[in-house]
Amino acid sequence: MSGTDYKFFGWIAKDKNAIGNMTWGEYQPKTWTEDDVDIKITHCGICASDLHTLRSGWGATDYPAVVGHEIVGTVVRVGKNVKSLKAGDRVGVGAQSGSCLNCEYCHQGKEPYCNGGQIGTYNGRWKDNSKSYGGYADYARVPAHFAFAIPEGVPSEVAAPLMCGGATLYSPLKQLEAGPGKRIGIVGIGGLGHFGLLFAKALGADPVAISHSHGKEEDAKKMGAVQFIATADEGYEKKSRRTLDGIVCTINDEKALEESLPKFATLLKPGGKIILVGLPERPLEGFKITPLVMNNVFIGGSAIAGSKEIPEMLKLVDKVALKAWVVLRPMEDANKAVVDMEDGKARYRYVLVNQKNGGKL
Amino acid sequence: MSGTDYKFFGWIAKDKNAIGNMTWGEYQPKTWTEDDVDIKITHCGICASDLHTLRSGWGATDYPAVVGHEIVGTVVRVGKNVKSLKAGDRVGVGAQSGSCLNCEYCHQGKEPYCNGGQIGTYNGRWKDNSKSYGGYADYARVPAHFAFAIPEGVPSEVAAPLMCGGATLYSPLKQLEAGPGKRIGIVGIGGLGHFGLLFAKALGADPVAISHSHGKEEDAKKMGAVQFIATADEGYEKKSRRTLDGIVCTINDEKALEESLPKFATLLKPGGKIILVGLPERPLEGFKITPLVMNNVFIGGSAIAGSKEIPEMLKLVDKVALKAWVVLRPMEDANKAVVDMEDGKARYRYVLVNQKNGGKL
Repeated sequence: MSGTDYKFFGWIAKDKNAIGNMTWGEYQPKTWTEDDVDIKITHCGICASDLHTLRSGWGATDYPAVVGHEIVGTVVRVGKNVKSLKAGDRVGVGAQSGSCLNCEYCHQGKEPYCNGGQIGTYNGRWKDNSKSYGGYADYARVPAHFAFAIPEGVPSEVAAPLMCGGATLYSPLKQLEAGPGKRIGIVGIGGLGHFGLLFAKALGADPVAISHSHGKEEDAKKMGAVQFIATADEGYEKKSRRTLDGIVCTINDEKALEESLPKFATLLKPGGKIILVGLPERPLEGFKITPLVMNNVFIGGSAIAGSKEIPEMLKLVDKVALKAWVVLRPMEDANKAVVDMEDGKARYRYVLVNQKNGGKL
Repeated sequence: MSGTDYKFFGWIAKDKNAIGNMTWGEYQPKTWTEDDVDIKITHCGICASDLHTLRSGWGATDYPAVVGHEIVGTVVRVGKNVKSLKAGDRVGVGAQSGSCLNCEYCHQGKEPYCNGGQIGTYNGRWKDNSKSYGGYADYARVPAHFAFAIPEGVPSEVAAPLMCGGATLYSPLKQLEAGPGKRIGIVGIGGLGHFGLLFAKALGADPVAISHSHGKEEDAKKMGAVQFIATADEGYEKKSRRTLDGIVCTINDEKALEESLPKFATLLKPGGKIILVGLPERPLEGFKITPLVMNNVFIGGSAIAGSKEIPEMLKLVDKVALKAWVVLRPMEDANKAVVDMEDGKARYRYVLVNQKNGGKL
């Protein structure tokens, strides 16, 4: 077991202008308990949630904050009550680090839906009011329940963005029973959407990429898409009417959702579901009920994944040697990387690499 | 077989002020085909759709119109191609009288979702451009495929409102897999909602009545509700959080839906569905996505029922001797009855009785 004389340094956000303006500094991690592990971070994916939180887009952020919830690293300290992990284990942590662990949903491994609510890996408060801090950093401290062993065959730079982005797509695909004979639409071919295509294919379904323009068509087909639908093409919803068994929609943009949801309802076969995994920053206007009723379709949402699905997903990734499309960025360049992410440049997921801690670019 | 020298008389709506102002007169029914039957009408339920159509609430109605799509009567003329029915059979006709009968949904008995669209029992146009006319009338002419034999044990005044109202609730309850161990919310204790409570109970589920005030609490409990939730009670959604496996929502009122849908999402267990069966006349504003995502719940819709579920429903009604709460009104008083319906006085479904044709008050 390593010594525990390390300090917690990370990229600190001070206010809502933090995108591009985080400062490297020390912070006080959660109060140690014997259920916790400390993790020496080698990799951390950049998730759209990080940007929403940096700019207080989902409500006022509890600054100072350190974002990042696609963490991979090595366990360096293990609480006495922890049986699942030992020092030296390579683990991943996703968007959730706390829940009651006692309710029916926690017992089912659906911790995101804990009756007591969830504590986020960053921008959260623990019971003793200490704060949760994320993975744009050297170390992370979390309850061992939320640190998942990474199978040996899965590279750390692939594992990192799986912890939130991958899991967030894996769960709705399982809810849609994606598998052979099912045709599943994936809306938005970005960090999340690319996982949608990869996982739908890995599960044996036929993925259909749905994007605004044809710009990402070639990439989407390489990721496994059997069809590419550009929503800028007039009448696409009529041409492909009732061809999809389910849709996972990763877009956040309110205007795009307002414009497209009735058309997506038309793409679905009766009985089908649209599962939204993005959180728009404002409610939708002009939301039409009639297409849902007349086509017997459903719109709902899904939030990340829990301790049942995350290990299942990692096992699948290992089995099929799923290759995430990641671009590695040095941890030092986190500010530049979040700005590039905001500008839509990621193809398709940025992963910060902490070289000091042994991460390799 | 009776003679075919009868004429088609009914309550004719001439313009959007037709609620209370229909006039009795003759009209030209659909062009006869050998797939059709003529029905001598004894009973016709009054459905909220009739009011929407009378006032052009769902878009411009194709006046002159005769509404009514909860029709029961006796077959008096049978087309040569018809094998399912014979003269003298007691049959019911619901909201749909036409579809392609050739697509996969028609083949599955899900005609409301026919790829070619449905032709309504009234305010529709047949292929030859002749119009469809409803059941506030003496006779109805429909394709035999959409006329369902009524089991002997089911009284006509019970059967009539089942054809649209009952079927519209039966289908979503089946979609929610309502049965033992399931707790199902029924929103709006009116004509549709009362069928929701009765059917949820008949299927073995625990129905929960959800209404604005406590006014209908006693009635709802007599209909089988194990719990009554009044949405006017502050904090009801927190008190009954995550207690329901599914919800069928019968309300049309846009403001009420805007106010209540996020709260209904809170009443559901994660994974649950709200199935809307009403069609609001305008889109919803301020529709919040976050409660759907964070609670993993779905909002969608269901439209009437097809030839798979209607006979199944009638069989269940016969088996459990389900008693609809109907108030009988003479066909002559149709104008007064639709005004009373509009004023919310029905407890819980008005059924027009054509005494001239043998219907009994």
